[in-house]
Amino acid sequence: MKTSDNQKETIELEKMRHTLSHVLAAAVTELYPTAKFGIGPAIDNGFYYDIDFGDTKVSDQDLEKIEKKMRGLIARKLEMKKRVASKTEALDWARDRKQDYKIELIEELPESEEISFYDMGDVFTDLCKGPHVANLSETGPFKLIRIAGAYWRGDEKREMLTRIYGVAFKTEEELDAYLKRQEEAKARDHRKLGKELDLFCFSDLVGAGLPLFTPRGTELRELMANYSLSLRGREGFKKVWTPHITKTDLYKTSGHYAKFGDELFMVHSQVNGEDFAMKPMNCPHHAQIFASRPRTYREMPVRYMEATTDYRDEKTGELGGLSRVRSLTQDDSHVFCRKDQIKDEVKRLVAIVKELYTTMGMQKLRARLSYRSDEDKYLGDKKLWEMAQNQIKQAAIDNGLDYFEQEGEAAFYGPKIDFMAEDAIGREHQLATIQLDFVQPERFELEFVNEKGEKERPVMIHHATLGSIERFLSVFIEHTGGWFPFWCAPEQVRIVTVNDTVSDYVAKITDILSGIVLEKPLKYNELRYSVDMSTDSLGKKIKRATEMKIPVLLIVGPKDAEEEIVSVRLRDKEEKVKLQKLAEYLCKLS
Amino acid sequence: MKTSDNQKETIELEKMRHTLSHVLAAAVTELYPTAKFGIGPAIDNGFYYDIDFGDTKVSDQDLEKIEKKMRGLIARKLEMKKRVASKTEALDWARDRKQDYKIELIEELPESEEISFYDMGDVFTDLCKGPHVANLSETGPFKLIRIAGAYWRGDEKREMLTRIYGVAFKTEEELDAYLKRQEEAKARDHRKLGKELDLFCFSDLVGAGLPLFTPRGTELRELMANYSLSLRGREGFKKVWTPHITKTDLYKTSGHYAKFGDELFMVHSQVNGEDFAMKPMNCPHHAQIFASRPRTYREMPVRYMEATTDYRDEKTGELGGLSRVRSLTQDDSHVFCRKDQIKDEVKRLVAIVKELYTTMGMQKLRARLSYRSDEDKYLGDKKLWEMAQNQIKQAAIDNGLDYFEQEGEAAFYGPKIDFMAEDAIGREHQLATIQLDFVQPERFELEFVNEKGEKERPVMIHHATLGSIERFLSVFIEHTGGWFPFWCAPEQVRIVTVNDTVSDYVAKITDILSGIVLEKPLKYNELRYSVDMSTDSLGKKIKRATEMKIPVLLIVGPKDAEEEIVSVRLRDKEEKVKLQKLAEYLCKLS
Repeated sequence: MKTSDNQKETIELEKMRHTLSHVLAAAVTELYPTAKFGIGPAIDNGFYYDIDFGDTKVSDQDLEKIEKKMRGLIARKLEMKKRVASKTEALDWARDRKQDYKIELIEELPESEEISFYDMGDVFTDLCKGPHVANLSETGPFKLIRIAGAYWRGDEKREMLTRIYGVAFKTEEELDAYLKRQEEAKARDHRKLGKELDLFCFSDLVGAGLPLFTPRGTELRELMANYSLSLRGREGFKKVWTPHITKTDLYKTSGHYAKFGDELFMVHSQVNGEDFAMKPMNCPHHAQIFASRPRTYREMPVRYMEATTDYRDEKTGELGGLSRVRSLTQDDSHVFCRKDQIKDEVKRLVAIVKELYTTMGMQKLRARLSYRSDEDKYLGDKKLWEMAQNQIKQAAIDNGLDYFEQEGEAAFYGPKIDFMAEDAIGREHQLATIQLDFVQPERFELEFVNEKGEKERPVMIHHATLGSIERFLSVFIEHTGGWFPFWCAPEQVRIVTVNDTVSDYVAKITDILSGIVLEKPLKYNELRYSVDMSTDSLGKKIKRATEMKIPVLLIVGPKDAEEEIVSVRLRDKEEKVKLQKLAEYLCKLS
Repeated sequence: MKTSDNQKETIELEKMRHTLSHVLAAAVTELYPTAKFGIGPAIDNGFYYDIDFGDTKVSDQDLEKIEKKMRGLIARKLEMKKRVASKTEALDWARDRKQDYKIELIEELPESEEISFYDMGDVFTDLCKGPHVANLSETGPFKLIRIAGAYWRGDEKREMLTRIYGVAFKTEEELDAYLKRQEEAKARDHRKLGKELDLFCFSDLVGAGLPLFTPRGTELRELMANYSLSLRGREGFKKVWTPHITKTDLYKTSGHYAKFGDELFMVHSQVNGEDFAMKPMNCPHHAQIFASRPRTYREMPVRYMEATTDYRDEKTGELGGLSRVRSLTQDDSHVFCRKDQIKDEVKRLVAIVKELYTTMGMQKLRARLSYRSDEDKYLGDKKLWEMAQNQIKQAAIDNGLDYFEQEGEAAFYGPKIDFMAEDAIGREHQLATIQLDFVQPERFELEFVNEKGEKERPVMIHHATLGSIERFLSVFIEHTGGWFPFWCAPEQVRIVTVNDTVSDYVAKITDILSGIVLEKPLKYNELRYSVDMSTDSLGKKIKRATEMKIPVLLIVGPKDAEEEIVSVRLRDKEEKVKLQKLAEYLCKLS
């Protein structure tokens, strides 16, 4: 949990960032006197302001000019002063200035509301709740970074405003580190790499948020899914298969319909007039398989897993690359167990999460244990909750997890563990999750016969290790910058020939490569290689392979053939390997 | 193509079957004078009549009585005589007899139409186009087999009639063989076996035609899919991945929307108000991946494959087990090739089909080559069609296929080969298909740069080896009667203990089993086994394993442990195998 010092610091940072959004507005007003302002809040890492520039085109090129003006204002050490007005006064102020968006905001406030303004010296005034720093000299280092479009009030039917984004930190070092990380992130942008490395594509005819995976991308996603499932397979999980649509009755029974009914993709049968929904998750389907025949304590826990695609109706404007898609493939699993099996099952899952993220080079994992609070939104027996929370915590300790606890953050149906993994450039991503569920077994009336011959209700444990494979890939592509670990590179090895005299020797090499099957971290992983014997120059061929970020190049010339060696070029080094040692050499790469 | 002798025989059989449906109606009239008749045609293997019995309940128990009455009529050797009437006369006849369904049928005929009746001696008259045999003595052996419900005119909003089914053949031998096969088919019914062997289930909450696969069923379907894809992987096919929904624009462009638009499952986004459709096939999606970057002749043919689930809006009444489902997973693939590559590509695919069906024990394959006729419904250049048809035929000959040719049976977009496979009880199933397509490349403007640097249009080749995996499984379960070949049995081996003194020896055996990986016909196929060490009697444990049709039982008692042997029980024999030979022994099973 955050300390109060931490909280104080966060508030100070927010004040500073929020004040900078006013400085931005003041600078814009000086440069573009007819600009109309929407809202300008502080956000993570900085601030923005939504502005209507009328017919004037403002672009990234103008940011420097605006920024200069902002620095001028700050240099004047203007004071920020709060002042209160009535609704009528506020409206007069906004109408005088033709600030239509402010008028709209003020009009929606209750008549009796005291409305506050902030004056920046005598230079600029803005309608604002605050708080702000007392003097512009207290704002820290900042930078305007980009311009984007944003609908007024997020409504696609309203005006499109220009959003100017800035970043701001307490120290120059923090700002520099952030900007550097952004620069780095930009170079690693998975949308850019996805295209360059030919991993996935979008089609206007298919639609936004619905990626199509090319052979390379499919190889990658299958390796990820298979590895994730293999870890669970080792622990007794069995694959099941469920359809992508269902009658809405399933979600009415599970309780999801009442909560998320208007976020479902609805499916209509023109032939039969029936209505279905696309599944946004798999738990109710898996519960139906559990319920398909009688169960006894002997077979508990029952463990199902499935890497299957769920569909969620995200807003078009929020879709981006693989980070947020409409078709999300979850490496999902569900344990149905006795209450006294919770700890063991959770331990098993925590160990799987640790192993997978270590393999992925993201071993820095933090776990949030989310518990219930005293609010009455939490369903199920309170004693069961306590027992389960204890079991979860014990599992976290036993696995040596770096964890923190948060009361009141549990799902309504049970406590959970969420995992935050840090990537190569220090960003944290919430990916894996383990969630207990006391509610669905109740709603679906799941049961097993216990040792005493009585019917007993199982507990369900939801788990996804990668989470959504698409979202995980967006993280993993940026984490690796497209230089995938050897075992999961879509093309692991490329043979590049110096000239056309070496085809016999190339055949010898491909004979060896065809026989290589990697066993770690995923078993039965046949080596994926290609041969570039084109008549292009060696330089061009090497460049092409390097652009595709192929981890191993085997450069083969007449001299190599003569000596039965292979010139191996890895990302960071080159070496000569004897032909008869090649298989052994490649199997050791990671 | 069928000879004229064959055709003549078929017509005779149809006349006989059709006459028997009249005999059925005559018998019913004698027993139930108020019965009203719908239609009574000849069908494959027999005939039926749809009858409205009013409030009288008629069930399978009544079939014997009706059949007896039918045999009585036939013994009287009554003549069948055609007679012609005007529409008015026909209506009078039907109204006199209160035959409401016949009235409806007659009313729909044009005023001027000559209407024909058939008199059966002076016993029974029916409105009928014919033809019939001249005398009831010419009807062959027959049997009434079952009663089902059928909506009048197939319309769910109309009356539910009682359909009585009969089978009829030329000879007693044929009838007996058919009935025996039916009996055998009933015992093998995949819906029954699916439940008994715990392969799949349905849920009322999920809906009809949407099977959920349990761990065993999922194992089976994955082995099938993986084997099918592995054969194509060997031939250079690469897996791709596409989402299950798409904007309808994709099908508008492909041309499918105009043809099948009202059979699509429509998907509605409540959040964005957009409309999508569930994909009923994958070709347009794959075409989008091909089109996602420029292509040159060097990389042709481009070969994509995907085992993915398509959704088709089948009529609820037509759904049955896995034979006809709404969620059908196709082991689909698409080749994009140059025109001069068609033959080689088709040969490759034909070889794959032969190999797969041989593995499945269904080596008796017939292929129908479907060509265009002179009708103008066929799109694309006529010369291209001719060239392609020649290439297909040559591929069939080169592969030694048992084929026949049919003009006018091609799809509008190109010629095709459909494969009919015979199962263990002599039924033929149309499963695999290879289809050329000249139209989609045109509509999606697909192209590659040829050797001359010019843009050229590729040809597409659609192929599915299993077809729909669900439908294939319905056939395969019945073909094997649930005794799956060793390599694909969901549970291949079960260890059954004689008593509880053998646990150390069992551990030795499971050590061996855990290390077994089968390599044929599918590589990297880890042995799937279980251990039954329960305290139940040996007899009970063996019975349980046999009911699950587990191909290999290892029965382990103290004496086996002492001698380090294992008693192996297969379906048809028992043998003793030395422990150190066990792995070798199991790897040789098929």
